Amino acid sequence: MNIVDTYKEDFLTYLNSKIAVKEPVNLYEPMHYILQIGGKRLRPILTIMTCDLFKGNAKEAYDAALAIEVFHNFTLIHDDIMDSAPIRRGKETVHHKWDLNTGILSGDAMMILALQCFESYEPIIFKKLVQLFNKTGLEVCEGQQLDIDFETRNDVSIDEYIKMITYKTSVLVAAAMKMGAIIANATEKDTENIYNFGLNLGIAFQLQDDYLDTFGNSETFGKQIGGDIIENKKTFLYLKCLQVCNLKDKEKLLGLYNSNKTTTTKVEEVTELFKKNKIVEITINEIAVYTKKAFEILNEMDLSEDKKAILKNFGLSLMKRTI
Amino acid sequence: MNIVDTYKEDFLTYLNSKIAVKEPVNLYEPMHYILQIGGKRLRPILTIMTCDLFKGNAKEAYDAALAIEVFHNFTLIHDDIMDSAPIRRGKETVHHKWDLNTGILSGDAMMILALQCFESYEPIIFKKLVQLFNKTGLEVCEGQQLDIDFETRNDVSIDEYIKMITYKTSVLVAAAMKMGAIIANATEKDTENIYNFGLNLGIAFQLQDDYLDTFGNSETFGKQIGGDIIENKKTFLYLKCLQVCNLKDKEKLLGLYNSNKTTTTKVEEVTELFKKNKIVEITINEIAVYTKKAFEILNEMDLSEDKKAILKNFGLSLMKRTI
Repeated sequence: MNIVDTYKEDFLTYLNSKIAVKEPVNLYEPMHYILQIGGKRLRPILTIMTCDLFKGNAKEAYDAALAIEVFHNFTLIHDDIMDSAPIRRGKETVHHKWDLNTGILSGDAMMILALQCFESYEPIIFKKLVQLFNKTGLEVCEGQQLDIDFETRNDVSIDEYIKMITYKTSVLVAAAMKMGAIIANATEKDTENIYNFGLNLGIAFQLQDDYLDTFGNSETFGKQIGGDIIENKKTFLYLKCLQVCNLKDKEKLLGLYNSNKTTTTKVEEVTELFKKNKIVEITINEIAVYTKKAFEILNEMDLSEDKKAILKNFGLSLMKRTI
Repeated sequence: MNIVDTYKEDFLTYLNSKIAVKEPVNLYEPMHYILQIGGKRLRPILTIMTCDLFKGNAKEAYDAALAIEVFHNFTLIHDDIMDSAPIRRGKETVHHKWDLNTGILSGDAMMILALQCFESYEPIIFKKLVQLFNKTGLEVCEGQQLDIDFETRNDVSIDEYIKMITYKTSVLVAAAMKMGAIIANATEKDTENIYNFGLNLGIAFQLQDDYLDTFGNSETFGKQIGGDIIENKKTFLYLKCLQVCNLKDKEKLLGLYNSNKTTTTKVEEVTELFKKNKIVEITINEIAVYTKKAFEILNEMDLSEDKKAILKNFGLSLMKRTI
C-alpha cells in the first residue's frame, strides 16, 4: 500500500469513529449519509500528508482533516440544492432523498460541526486554523456566487473565470495543505508556499476537469462526457473559444448554447468548434502552466528531495486522475 | 437616555461602520439588507451590558455582540426559507425579495462572517468564545429541527416543548450574556450564573410570546393576534390545554386544529377552550416560575445591588415588552 492509500485508510477509520447519528435523527442522519457515500477524500489526505511531510505528528492532523472534509460535504449539500441536482456520486442528493428544509438545516449544522473539529487544538493553533477556515469558507461562498452570476452574464473574462474556480475549488485544497503545515509548526515561508502549491494545483485540477468533461474518457472520468455543453456551462473551453475564434464561429457557438438541438448533435458540434479553434492544445497548455507554477514553488521549499517527490507525484497522479 | 438605549445606539453605530456591501454584490447585499431592517437588537445589547456590569470594557464586547447579531440574522434568513415566510419585520424576507439560492448562500456566508467577528480577540478568549458559539449554534439547529419534527408529531410533551424553545431561542440569549462575562474576565461561577440567568429569562420570554400571540394586544405585540392558532402551531398553550382538559374538550381542540373553519371562528373557539381550561392562569404562572428562577440566580452572583437591579429591570422590561 502506498503512503497516500495509508493516509486515506487511516482517515476513513477516524471519520467512521467520529460520525454517529444522534438526536434529533432528522438533523444528523443526512450528515452521516453524505459523509458515507464516498468521494476521493482528497482534501483530508492533503492535510494529513502535509503535516507528515513537515515532520508533524500525522495523527494530530486528523481533526483538521475531518473539519475540511465535513465543511466540503456541507458545501456539496447546499450546492446540490442550488443546482437542483438529484444525484451526487451515483446516489440521491440530500435534499432529494429527504427534502429542501432538511438539506438547508443539516448543511448549516455540518458547517458548525466542522468548526467544532478544531476544538482539540490549543488556543494559538486553534485561532490560526479557524481564521484560515473562515477566510477560506467565505471565499468558497464568493466563488459559488460568482458561478451563479456567470450563468446570466455574457461578458465573463478568462481572468474572472480563473478567479471563480480559484475561490470555488482551489482555496479549499490550498487551505487543507496549509492546515497540515500549521499543525506541524512549519516555518511561515513554507506554510505560505504549500498554500500556493495547493492553490495552483487546484486551478490546474479544475481546468483539467473542464477539459475531461468534453474530451475525457467516460469510463475513467466518471461523469457523462459533454455534460457541461448540454448544461450550457461557461467553462474555460467555452470562454477561450469565444475569445480566440472568428466572428462566424462565435455566432455559431453562441447559437448552439442557446439552441434546442438534440443534445448529441449539440455536443458534437460544440466539440468540433473547440477542436477547430485549437482549444484542446490551449487548455492542455494552460493546465501545464498552473502545474508548472505549483512545481516551481516546491523547489523553493525547505523539504528533502524525497518529500518533494511525494508531493510532485501526488500532483501528477491527480492530473492523471488515478486517485 | 437610559443605559440600555445607550448600549443600543452605540451598537448600531458600530454595526453600521462594519457592514458594507462589497463584491460579489449578490452575496453581500442581502446580508446588509437583513441587518438594516431593524429588530430589537436584544442579544447584542445583552452582550455589551453584561461585559459592562462585570467591569469589562464595553467597547471590547462590540465584536462579540456583532457576531451574535449576525448569527441571529443568518438563522432568520434560513428559518424564513424553511417556514416559506414572505414577510419579516414588515419587510420582504431575503428569499422572497431575491430568490431561494440567494437566501441559502448569503445565509451561509453570514454564519462565517459572524465567526470572523471574533478574530479581534486574543487566542485564549477567542477559543472560549468560538467554542461557546459552536455549541450554541448547534443547539439552535437542533431546536429548529425539533420544531420541524413537532409539526407532524401528535405526542409532544411539555418537557419536549420546553427543550425545543430552550434550544431554538434561549441558548442564544444565554450565550450572548455569557460572552460579555467571558470578555470581562468574570469568575467561572459568575459566567455560568449569567448564562443560566439568560437561559431562564429566554424561556420566560418565549412562553410569554406564546401567551401574547393569543391573549396579547395587537398594537403593542406587533403581530397578528391568533396567528399561532391559525397556523396550528403546537404552542405551550395548546399542549398544556390538551394535557389538562377533559376528553370532550380534547377532541374539540384536536378537531379545530384540523378543521377548515374560517379563521376568525377558529381563533375564537380555540381561545374559549384555553380560557375555560384556565390556560391563561397556568401560562402566566409558568412564565413567573422561569422569571423567578432567573432572578434567584442573580441573588447568588458577585455583583453590586445596583448592577443586579439593572439586570432585573432589564428582565422586567423585557417581560413588559417595552423594549
